Amino acid sequence: MAAPEESLRKALAEKQSAVEAHGNAVRALKAAKASKPEIDAAIEALNSLKLEKSSIEKQLQAAVSGSDGDGALSREAFRQAAVNTLERRLFYIPSFKIYRGVAGLYDYGPPGCAVKSNVLAFWRQHFVLEENMLEVDCPCVTPEVVLKASGHVDKFTDLMVKDEKTGTCYRADHLLKDFCNEKLQKDLTISAEKAAELKHVLATLDDLSAEALGAKIKEYGITAPDTKNPLSDPYPFNLMFQTSIGPSGLSPGYMRPETAQGIFVNFKDLYYYNGNKLPFAAAQIGQAFRNEISPRQGLLRVREFTLAEIEHFVDPEDKSHPKYSEVVDLEFLMFPREEQMSGQSAKKIRLGDAVSKGTVNNETLGYFIGRVYLFLTRLGIDKDRLRFRQHLANEMAHYAADCWDAEIECSYGWIECVGIADRSAYDLRAHSEHHVKNVFDEGQREGNIDFIGTNLDKSGVPLVAAEKFSEPREVEKLVIAPVKKELGLAFKGSQKNVVEALEAMNEKEALEMKAALESKGEVEFYVCTLGKNVPIKKNMVSISKEKKKEHQRVFTPSVIEPSFGIGRIIYCLFEHSFYTRPSKAGDEQLNVFRFPPLVAPIKCTVFPLVQNQQYEDVAKVISKSLTTAGISHKIDITGTSIGKRYARTDELGVPFAITVDSTKDVTIRERDSKLQVRVSVEEAALVVKSVTDGLRTWEDVWEKYPHHTSGSADD
Amino acid sequence: MAAPEESLRKALAEKQSAVEAHGNAVRALKAAKASKPEIDAAIEALNSLKLEKSSIEKQLQAAVSGSDGDGALSREAFRQAAVNTLERRLFYIPSFKIYRGVAGLYDYGPPGCAVKSNVLAFWRQHFVLEENMLEVDCPCVTPEVVLKASGHVDKFTDLMVKDEKTGTCYRADHLLKDFCNEKLQKDLTISAEKAAELKHVLATLDDLSAEALGAKIKEYGITAPDTKNPLSDPYPFNLMFQTSIGPSGLSPGYMRPETAQGIFVNFKDLYYYNGNKLPFAAAQIGQAFRNEISPRQGLLRVREFTLAEIEHFVDPEDKSHPKYSEVVDLEFLMFPREEQMSGQSAKKIRLGDAVSKGTVNNETLGYFIGRVYLFLTRLGIDKDRLRFRQHLANEMAHYAADCWDAEIECSYGWIECVGIADRSAYDLRAHSEHHVKNVFDEGQREGNIDFIGTNLDKSGVPLVAAEKFSEPREVEKLVIAPVKKELGLAFKGSQKNVVEALEAMNEKEALEMKAALESKGEVEFYVCTLGKNVPIKKNMVSISKEKKKEHQRVFTPSVIEPSFGIGRIIYCLFEHSFYTRPSKAGDEQLNVFRFPPLVAPIKCTVFPLVQNQQYEDVAKVISKSLTTAGISHKIDITGTSIGKRYARTDELGVPFAITVDSTKDVTIRERDSKLQVRVSVEEAALVVKSVTDGLRTWEDVWEKYPHHTSGSADD
Repeated sequence: MAAPEESLRKALAEKQSAVEAHGNAVRALKAAKASKPEIDAAIEALNSLKLEKSSIEKQLQAAVSGSDGDGALSREAFRQAAVNTLERRLFYIPSFKIYRGVAGLYDYGPPGCAVKSNVLAFWRQHFVLEENMLEVDCPCVTPEVVLKASGHVDKFTDLMVKDEKTGTCYRADHLLKDFCNEKLQKDLTISAEKAAELKHVLATLDDLSAEALGAKIKEYGITAPDTKNPLSDPYPFNLMFQTSIGPSGLSPGYMRPETAQGIFVNFKDLYYYNGNKLPFAAAQIGQAFRNEISPRQGLLRVREFTLAEIEHFVDPEDKSHPKYSEVVDLEFLMFPREEQMSGQSAKKIRLGDAVSKGTVNNETLGYFIGRVYLFLTRLGIDKDRLRFRQHLANEMAHYAADCWDAEIECSYGWIECVGIADRSAYDLRAHSEHHVKNVFDEGQREGNIDFIGTNLDKSGVPLVAAEKFSEPREVEKLVIAPVKKELGLAFKGSQKNVVEALEAMNEKEALEMKAALESKGEVEFYVCTLGKNVPIKKNMVSISKEKKKEHQRVFTPSVIEPSFGIGRIIYCLFEHSFYTRPSKAGDEQLNVFRFPPLVAPIKCTVFPLVQNQQYEDVAKVISKSLTTAGISHKIDITGTSIGKRYARTDELGVPFAITVDSTKDVTIRERDSKLQVRVSVEEAALVVKSVTDGLRTWEDVWEKYPHHTSGSADD
Repeated sequence: MAAPEESLRKALAEKQSAVEAHGNAVRALKAAKASKPEIDAAIEALNSLKLEKSSIEKQLQAAVSGSDGDGALSREAFRQAAVNTLERRLFYIPSFKIYRGVAGLYDYGPPGCAVKSNVLAFWRQHFVLEENMLEVDCPCVTPEVVLKASGHVDKFTDLMVKDEKTGTCYRADHLLKDFCNEKLQKDLTISAEKAAELKHVLATLDDLSAEALGAKIKEYGITAPDTKNPLSDPYPFNLMFQTSIGPSGLSPGYMRPETAQGIFVNFKDLYYYNGNKLPFAAAQIGQAFRNEISPRQGLLRVREFTLAEIEHFVDPEDKSHPKYSEVVDLEFLMFPREEQMSGQSAKKIRLGDAVSKGTVNNETLGYFIGRVYLFLTRLGIDKDRLRFRQHLANEMAHYAADCWDAEIECSYGWIECVGIADRSAYDLRAHSEHHVKNVFDEGQREGNIDFIGTNLDKSGVPLVAAEKFSEPREVEKLVIAPVKKELGLAFKGSQKNVVEALEAMNEKEALEMKAALESKGEVEFYVCTLGKNVPIKKNMVSISKEKKKEHQRVFTPSVIEPSFGIGRIIYCLFEHSFYTRPSKAGDEQLNVFRFPPLVAPIKCTVFPLVQNQQYEDVAKVISKSLTTAGISHKIDITGTSIGKRYARTDELGVPFAITVDSTKDVTIRERDSKLQVRVSVEEAALVVKSVTDGLRTWEDVWEKYPHHTSGSADD
């Protein structure tokens, strides 16, 4: 992708030099009063060079702004049309609009709210019900201690810069990103080297420290976008909304930035609820909050949003999945790390192959990738604009085993909508360790836990699972037994630090020390809590491998976490569903959302063809049977033309319209094909129900029932 | 209710005096060495008096603690049994338990979460879908300006006292309430007058000012419950969780204390969405937050909870409801204001009678009371422990037209679970007025709005509706036209204040001024924004009544608001559904929740009778068809006895169990009757589905299918 752009930039620079050189030559000829034919020939050559330059410029412009030169423009126009419709029909609107709103907060109006509740109901059906997950519902208000343990209090930050005069705040990386993109797209004169540098900055944006970001901002002379004032150095801003719990003002709390922590802290109870068996998954749907520095892109980056998260707990030694075979043959766009590094694009891969080749770390992770693919495409996401992108090494947390994002392409580019991560044992350990310090031998933690000679904080709750052996097994265990008396004599007040450091050795370190002590009798040992080396003698610690009978294996389960940004999915679904088509008269473009019945906000409208008591009574009868059948619908008895009423409901994505034009039979019209069938009044509700419930397709209906032949009203 | 208690207290005091007098008499006889028969007779009389006193004591004890003397105790024991089961089976648990929890925050575990989601789904069906309400979904984070306008920033407070030494905070009214209740229930020696005083305090608790509360606390010598330290004076504590929106720290915000405001600020858009027609209702389900000073009573008083609110907007001149006839014949416990004042108890009233007699203010309010009754009883709330209590005059906001609470009786007493209030035009006006100051002539606001000669704050959004007249109507309108030139000459810089004050006159004031100006030529006029009188001359203002043709009537709609505390409803439902019955062997009490299928967390369990591959395969086939039918269920293939497995699922309130004991037919057992029928493997899922969907009853099934005769396993 970058390759043609780079060569174009080089070609452009060369052509520019050639144009300049030729221009000089022409001027020299003129000055030297050369012959007219000679000058004319030179000018012709110059013009042809200019034409070539201009052609390269166009190609470069096209290369930097997408597949075609008008791509960015048409994307913008498409989005404008979709968003106008969405806001006008109250799918969503900026919150507190009469008070001029608050950036990053949106309301879902009636149709948006219905779409959202349909998406969540399907999520519950597809994941919670079909997988027998344990759904929980925890509060948003969270005490500080929980988010301290999870790392959010210390690390959930973005780097911010301030306009030094007005105090307006900006996200530092956004400013740098905008600067680089703008430069790359609009300034065709920059050299290929400069372009490569800017691209490198964009690629490594997430890795830049506050200092590095600040240096780049200075280097590029970036100023405050609104005022052009100088900017402060970048500094971290915590994205959690802070509050205070209770009346004393002494208990800080936060609005949760994710729902996952509520599940982790309940692991022990949930494991017990599941009969002390692994694997199992817990799930939660709920609000999450991030006090974004500068919210943008509508529903895509907001300050409050609905998350649906799954925490699948699994034995780290067995990440197979019983239902893996159900997804193994799915084939869809995947974008593994290697393809990204080598500049290729996403390609269709059979999920089973990705797992068996090790591209996807394990079966369970693969299973969830497949289930997410099914979930999104059944909602109506276009499978050709959906890809699963693997995190690059630098994107992934150090503890993560593997991580894939379901990215959906919309007018803003590829948007991360679902993250599917194998987070290993990180989260459960973080909460265990916040209580239980120095309990585990670090090196042995995964396998054999030994509480001997440790400081167990009694309030601590180790979040672990156990595999009971059918018969006891003999295992070799490393036992580090510090001799406290000797250590006390040698190190006095520092004894505790030394004991802890000794116990914290992993197997390799301990065995090396054992060997060294046996050969030399004394070793230098670094105690990090003291910040120095201390001499350890042979009589101060006993290190041995002992054979023990074990009845169970105790371990911290791995967590595989699919996390769904519901608002982002819904926004992308809106874009993928939106299209326009000319009106019957051809004088305007009509808006349509092609929502599948599953997500459509209203499944059906009922229209009396003309205002007439008889037809209205029939419409009410049908409405009643639709209500009984649980089909959300709307009656429209306004005197507006039937074509206008269809257009109005197409714009809400209503899949079916029942038009009452007799007291016996009615017409059912399908939104996208505009085809119509005749059905009896009694059957109408059931026909609609069977299609919206997915028991049959519109094609089945089209085959079974007589077609409406008198010409459809809106076509 | 109070009457017998009062007379008992009097009788007890008299009997006590009699006992004392008689005691003295006996002592006097002894001192006077009276004859033994004489003394014996006196002692006998004394003992009989003591017996009478003790009997009155018992009656009094019974009267103060409920219907019978053991009432309080058994209520406590019942609650303990229910709550133990609820917490053990993870219906709900204190949040963040491994960190010792936070008062007033609870998690719903898997079965509780399922019950909650069933309750909300039914709420959506019963209200939103059946009434075609406009559902919206607004953020929890709310900017200060919105809650300033609604009055929450200034008035959403509770009075708090602090332990003067430790700083621990308490709700002042709770301490006073606890003191009075304790005194009334445990101290039988207090006089009838004292008892009456304490009861009066309890009855007027909500009306007490900070000063009055503080005075009572001092008078009764109430101290901090834990330390007995002295308490501070009461002072108001705002119950909203405060936070800050955006990075600047300059935009205060709160977590919403109710969902209603999100609807009110969107009134204009929603009215438009509804085709500019009234009445219509908007609805919202979502989290709300109250930073309670001292949360208590489990799920009943918490710091974060789910609200489901309806705002039904209606023309104040026409509060009829098209579907009123559907509820008019419902009969249930109502507790009108009068009955409360006269010490009677709630009684069964036909809803239609309550409305036609004016006990319930209007049809629409009555309609919603009826719908709430149907909603709660269909969920499984016992209709004999549900009453609709009208607010007393002192409980109701000054603007409210009428207000009824659906109260459910549980072990904590009668709990307000749904509030149904006619809030008149208060809320919409509050938001309109926050922008549009001095726009409306106060006196004319309800009728004719005139924007002429007013200062319309351009950002203001009047939240009003309009009734278009079929033909123009002639109306007489008051027109106040200040003559700015003259006023400018007379008042210079204060001109604007005078103009605004003139325009703000109501009809009566204006007509008085007109008369005075005509008779005297000049009047003194108080301008509140100047804080003084100014002289107004005849040439400074023209006041006239003009006849105008009007094409519409513009007005602020009334709001009728049913507001549901979902957590409270669920807790009461738990208590109403809970019972125990002896095990087969009679050696223990088994817990059962008699949830109707509609709310049961899992609809069905599937048990292979014994561990056996064939049966397990059949169980899997049935499980698959249950999943397809959308029936939440669980397979239990543990080797536990079938009786134990039934007990385990009864405790979760699972209504049906399918036991696989052959490969052709299976047994379906109903939870409460423990009756069993034989059904083919193919039919099993459909039978369960038809009953859980309410298409037929268990009785229908019992009639249709052969009974399981080999004796039920758990009975």
